[in-house]
Amino acid sequence: MRPNRSIVLKSRPSGVPALEDFELREAPLRALEDGEILLEHLFLSIDPAIRGWMAEKKSYLPPIALGEPIRSGTLSRVAESRDPKFKPGTLVQALAAWEERSIVRPQQIMGEINRLPGIPLAAHLSVLGGNGLTAYFGLLEVGKPQPGETVVITAAGGGVGSVAAQLAKLRGARSIGIAGGEEKKRFLLEELGLDAAIDYKNEDVNAALKAAAPKGVDVFFDSVGGELLEIGLARLALRGRVVLCGAISQIHEDSPAEGPRNYVQLLAKRGRMEGFVTLDYAARYDEARAVLADYLRSGELVHRDEIVTGLENTPQHFLRLFDGSHRGKLMVRLQTTDEDDR
Amino acid sequence: MRPNRSIVLKSRPSGVPALEDFELREAPLRALEDGEILLEHLFLSIDPAIRGWMAEKKSYLPPIALGEPIRSGTLSRVAESRDPKFKPGTLVQALAAWEERSIVRPQQIMGEINRLPGIPLAAHLSVLGGNGLTAYFGLLEVGKPQPGETVVITAAGGGVGSVAAQLAKLRGARSIGIAGGEEKKRFLLEELGLDAAIDYKNEDVNAALKAAAPKGVDVFFDSVGGELLEIGLARLALRGRVVLCGAISQIHEDSPAEGPRNYVQLLAKRGRMEGFVTLDYAARYDEARAVLADYLRSGELVHRDEIVTGLENTPQHFLRLFDGSHRGKLMVRLQTTDEDDR
Repeated sequence: MRPNRSIVLKSRPSGVPALEDFELREAPLRALEDGEILLEHLFLSIDPAIRGWMAEKKSYLPPIALGEPIRSGTLSRVAESRDPKFKPGTLVQALAAWEERSIVRPQQIMGEINRLPGIPLAAHLSVLGGNGLTAYFGLLEVGKPQPGETVVITAAGGGVGSVAAQLAKLRGARSIGIAGGEEKKRFLLEELGLDAAIDYKNEDVNAALKAAAPKGVDVFFDSVGGELLEIGLARLALRGRVVLCGAISQIHEDSPAEGPRNYVQLLAKRGRMEGFVTLDYAARYDEARAVLADYLRSGELVHRDEIVTGLENTPQHFLRLFDGSHRGKLMVRLQTTDEDDR
Repeated sequence: MRPNRSIVLKSRPSGVPALEDFELREAPLRALEDGEILLEHLFLSIDPAIRGWMAEKKSYLPPIALGEPIRSGTLSRVAESRDPKFKPGTLVQALAAWEERSIVRPQQIMGEINRLPGIPLAAHLSVLGGNGLTAYFGLLEVGKPQPGETVVITAAGGGVGSVAAQLAKLRGARSIGIAGGEEKKRFLLEELGLDAAIDYKNEDVNAALKAAAPKGVDVFFDSVGGELLEIGLARLALRGRVVLCGAISQIHEDSPAEGPRNYVQLLAKRGRMEGFVTLDYAARYDEARAVLADYLRSGELVHRDEIVTGLENTPQHFLRLFDGSHRGKLMVRLQTTDEDDR
């Protein structure tokens, strides 16, 4: 039996996670049962959604059990298969875990990777993976921006936000990004080419948003919550839509979560606040990937991935999501990645 | 020039309104200008929405100015008209004010009253007026309950809620009402025939709702906000809809408004929270009135109106909306009402 190394959940965080909540575990891999597939991971995904799965609370997926590997998106190679649909050697995107190898069921495999020439393999886990798909369905199917409308994206420098912000622009909307820090603001304006950008760490967001979106906000694509969500609601245009993608600000160590105090804006503005889960759109992943790949090939869609190494370092990079020090989408490349898998 | 008596806004309330915020004013009526209509009011409407219009804050209608009559729905007779579309003697439903007579523009007239035989005139201002229309469009167009789904209505004993709760049942949904007090609970069960009722003053609403809606809430029609909204969100079913009709609990004297702390439930449940304004559906009022009138005639739709008298008493009855002591829809009948206008 081969050994396997995993990052497991040691304790449930009460607010922002700490390194002590994780543990590196080494254990032999068991043999495959019928219908199971052994995946060897090339890249692991580091996403805010993982924080949600670490909580005791039931959500759209069950909580990660204590002592179990941390659930995450992965880009993986089929190493062994007892399901005839998956041939050894195939590259796939999966919902597996922070570990070297995972034994999975077919429904955890989200699709084969048809690698696009000239595009790094890792991009298939970011802009062509869960992040890109989340941005695509959340923005286009829930937010439904129309040409000429104004779209505002929080966490616009992140893996999901940066794609959503560009998609809004590509669909003819005015796209405004909110992110923390001068460097991220420059990235939004100069590299993503957004119409406006707001640095929430150094600017009065409400005043800046009023100036940048004088006619109000038609679509507010929010991954942050808290004060930013309230500002978005306050500046909502008639029939504006708030797309709930996440609420990273609502993870407090000391204080309980806060709801948007001005939610009745939805009434005056005939607005809508709506949540979504990307997994619900699985039947349309190929369509979305094809659109995103076209934009990538034409150079209209820019992505920024920050690739780190070492399974054992995964938790410390995960914690960077909560201080905003990451740049674009965070992924871990494992030793199993060959030169031509990069 | 004839004298006119009005209830005017003397000061803006900071929380629950007080009698001192209102003043009875007597002033002569000016002459009509071209295009204006003089209405003589038979019934004035007393609604929670008026509290919103008393605030400084801009909403879907401008705030009532200090010293101006309190805006309200009315059931009125055209007394004079300088618009050829409106003939003297016609009965209309209007958005006018708490006063004996109002000079209005055509756009304030929401429709002519085609009085239904056997139905009291006042019902044309309640179940066939703004309340019934609000329930109709809010529930059916925003909430869109499907047969077999579970609908929960807060303030289910009130003018809007009681109609929404019955409409839900008439459309084949399971209908659960929340109201305050034993008497209101009995009204919901025995007179409206709802599937279940919860007395929020004497019951653990979360536990009672869990028992009454074990599969979750598909449509939560909310006029209250606060803790009840949080319970509704907590018990939302997959793809559940929260219809925002109002937020009467959010009028606090001392504490700021509170948002629903568990709004991220919308994400896990792929839910939607949406506001609406009945005025937007003006083009479809006749369609809605016809449907509601059919239900009234067949006896399937029950309504309870509490009709009080005396313009000068209007503010004190308005205050009853905030302690829950009203029974059904509150209206004021003015002296101008003849016997056969009742």
